[in-house]
Amino acid sequence: MPEKSVANIGVVGLAVMGSNLARNLASREGNTVAVFNRSRSRTDELVAEHPEAGFLPAYDYEEFAATLSKPRTAIIMVQAGKGTDAVIDELVQVFEPGDIIVDGGNALFTDTIRREKAVRETGINFVGAGISGGEEGALNGPSIMPGGSDESWVTLGPILRSIAAVAEGEPCVTHVGHDGAGHFVKMVHNGIEYADMQLIAEAYDLIRRGTGKSPAEIADIFAQWNKGELESYLIEITAEVLRQVDAETGTPLVDVILDQAGAKGTGAWTVQTALDLGIPVSGIAEAVFARSLSSKPAQRAAASDLPGPSESWKVSDPDAFVEDVRKALYASKIVAYSQGFDEIVAGAQQYGWDIKKGDIAAIWRGGCIIRAQFLNRITEAYAEDAGLVALLTAPYFREALGRTQEAWRRVVVTAAQAGIPSPAFSSSLAYYDGLRADRLPAALVQGQRDFFGAHTYKRVDKDGVFHTLWSGDRSEIETEPSTH
Amino acid sequence: MPEKSVANIGVVGLAVMGSNLARNLASREGNTVAVFNRSRSRTDELVAEHPEAGFLPAYDYEEFAATLSKPRTAIIMVQAGKGTDAVIDELVQVFEPGDIIVDGGNALFTDTIRREKAVRETGINFVGAGISGGEEGALNGPSIMPGGSDESWVTLGPILRSIAAVAEGEPCVTHVGHDGAGHFVKMVHNGIEYADMQLIAEAYDLIRRGTGKSPAEIADIFAQWNKGELESYLIEITAEVLRQVDAETGTPLVDVILDQAGAKGTGAWTVQTALDLGIPVSGIAEAVFARSLSSKPAQRAAASDLPGPSESWKVSDPDAFVEDVRKALYASKIVAYSQGFDEIVAGAQQYGWDIKKGDIAAIWRGGCIIRAQFLNRITEAYAEDAGLVALLTAPYFREALGRTQEAWRRVVVTAAQAGIPSPAFSSSLAYYDGLRADRLPAALVQGQRDFFGAHTYKRVDKDGVFHTLWSGDRSEIETEPSTH
Repeated sequence: MPEKSVANIGVVGLAVMGSNLARNLASREGNTVAVFNRSRSRTDELVAEHPEAGFLPAYDYEEFAATLSKPRTAIIMVQAGKGTDAVIDELVQVFEPGDIIVDGGNALFTDTIRREKAVRETGINFVGAGISGGEEGALNGPSIMPGGSDESWVTLGPILRSIAAVAEGEPCVTHVGHDGAGHFVKMVHNGIEYADMQLIAEAYDLIRRGTGKSPAEIADIFAQWNKGELESYLIEITAEVLRQVDAETGTPLVDVILDQAGAKGTGAWTVQTALDLGIPVSGIAEAVFARSLSSKPAQRAAASDLPGPSESWKVSDPDAFVEDVRKALYASKIVAYSQGFDEIVAGAQQYGWDIKKGDIAAIWRGGCIIRAQFLNRITEAYAEDAGLVALLTAPYFREALGRTQEAWRRVVVTAAQAGIPSPAFSSSLAYYDGLRADRLPAALVQGQRDFFGAHTYKRVDKDGVFHTLWSGDRSEIETEPSTH
Repeated sequence: MPEKSVANIGVVGLAVMGSNLARNLASREGNTVAVFNRSRSRTDELVAEHPEAGFLPAYDYEEFAATLSKPRTAIIMVQAGKGTDAVIDELVQVFEPGDIIVDGGNALFTDTIRREKAVRETGINFVGAGISGGEEGALNGPSIMPGGSDESWVTLGPILRSIAAVAEGEPCVTHVGHDGAGHFVKMVHNGIEYADMQLIAEAYDLIRRGTGKSPAEIADIFAQWNKGELESYLIEITAEVLRQVDAETGTPLVDVILDQAGAKGTGAWTVQTALDLGIPVSGIAEAVFARSLSSKPAQRAAASDLPGPSESWKVSDPDAFVEDVRKALYASKIVAYSQGFDEIVAGAQQYGWDIKKGDIAAIWRGGCIIRAQFLNRITEAYAEDAGLVALLTAPYFREALGRTQEAWRRVVVTAAQAGIPSPAFSSSLAYYDGLRADRLPAALVQGQRDFFGAHTYKRVDKDGVFHTLWSGDRSEIETEPSTH
């Protein structure tokens, strides 16, 4: 039986993410960590494997609560869903008003809002905290996106700062906003990650099919790119993956891996939520769809002999093409982040969160999967203009798009001509051209809607809502907005 | 007080859609229609305006129920949402086991599943029925997509057949499947409608900006297209809208309409549901996003001077370009329908509905917004091969894609070069090229996922699930699928 009330933090759920986070906590000055797992053996195993951590094991919830100093603070690290609710129910029984329950899993933010509301009625604080960085990040320093109350942040802030990744001297954690804000921002982070990965995959595919370079040669290109404005964890590991040779066959690993990408759902949530909020996140959507398309082997087999371009094809100037692809990647990445930040802004407005956009970019600079040099530019853009209506219109990004957009167009053209699927590149360009268009054919769509559904339209030259009597004399009437 | 038990069908909710549907019902041999509206004045107004209909007005739910012969059958035509639940609650009080309540609104299919389950416990049948065709269709013959039980279909079938649109001698109604199947299929119908409208809008925009033709000239082109394989209601009304001149300014109406397209949500539902089902409906998603992008005036203003192509641009051979656009539209439309039918197949599988795909295409041939010549080809494709894994691989569509894909590529190339946003054209092409690709860079994505999250991968050369020890000696181990 451990000494009572001596742990300042507890972890519930000791699978890889939970035990790594517990070890991270224990390694930092000032933390004493209580650990609890549903199965006693896992708890004992972790404690035995890591005597240096000085873990205080608990074997039931009463004991776990008794081991924690007040306000008790516990981080739940179990699989998102019903398991989370079950653990919360148990903790609420043994915790007291003022204590803090943190959900560190990938919960859907609306679940977090619901849970926060329910737990708050007991006087206990509930904090949904997005944690990014995978197993490695959990152990050595993740990027952490906590929501929850201001009261909880007083206790929780120093603890989370102690374990977060550090980027340019700053811990990668900030109090994102109330209730579900943290999980919301983590969701969008993952959505951007989907887009970034798909863009990199398209860049690789275009270079390989366009120039005939080997994966190892392309690894060198990515390593080179990682020294410039594209510097990021995903570019870095792409070089590593492309350089890997399968020991069994002696061929590049990327050619041995089945080309069906899996997904855990947070990318789809990002798109579904954006649709609720009316935010066009086309780059993220195309990335999610590209994965689901890849995982349809029967359809792909049936479609494999559908007609494509008549001539086989290679680019005439490989070096110039590679540089074009680099620029297209950078431009498309700006679009993906701009769309992601649009979603954060819309979510904050919808749910009443006071989210500091520059701080979000800052805490993504370390620990998480999308960490990148680039994020400093975003923090700066919002520092210069907190009311920036679209990230891609900030001076830095405007300049970057100006010097990349011609190359971006050439890459999209090449992909279409060569029959190389580039859904994220081409969708990002179409979004860019849509946003900067003086006039959009949305006017025709609105005219069609008025024709078949009397959905009405506005005019460019005066206020009001109008309808043309299409099945009558085709005169125009002023009307109220359609409600059906 | 009307005579008792003489109406074979009743309508609750007498706004435009409801009153038009009631008039349609009343106009068909054998139907006697009871009508009820929350406000008595609306009921009296309708009855007075249409003496020819022989409506039997009711002024409360008891009277409404008493007016109907058994099994009582009532169609609810109120705004989707809480209003629907309120009416159902009232009807359940006055109806009896075996009676039939039909919701003819645009309910979300999961709401319909929930309502059907709840109402079924009373012994009353609940049928969610998608009704397409707008006000005009409701009056003269809509396309109807009813779900619900087989028992309800015995009574309801003849009534719905009496009012549905007729295409090639067949009424445009079929029993789609149980509980929410009808509203599900109606939702996908609307999603396809979004894609079709966006593709038409892009075609118009490309022709206008590419050739300098006037809206009236482009109206002639659409009218011409409507005589060929693109023949459809949406192409027909596009010509009408483009030909319309604003009386006040003397300019084409399409130039007077504000270029911000609205949406009622069914397009977004289609995409959100597809994401749950893992179906890539990129064409529909791009169409929904194009509307939301258009409705961001502040962002568009800030982005209006972002850099575009350096040269002003017109096509060299306008006639050839118009023909290319026509082909691109046809090819992209095939993709949109193929994606939509994929969603129907996946929904049927998920929810246990026995949906006849060919019958769905058949009932969309008349009455509804997407009615088109083209749908016969879909019915034929499923008649030839009920197990067709992807619509676009059917012989007819394969041939059509073969003779259009080069033109499609030229159009996407032109759009990218000229800076004309064509998200639906380019996304559809990318989907097409993705589906027919021998190898996708999804293998790299899966490699990245294994690197940062130990998400594992499969191999092309043997069964099993594998993981490379990226932070260890980089050897490969065989493992269980990742669960975190």
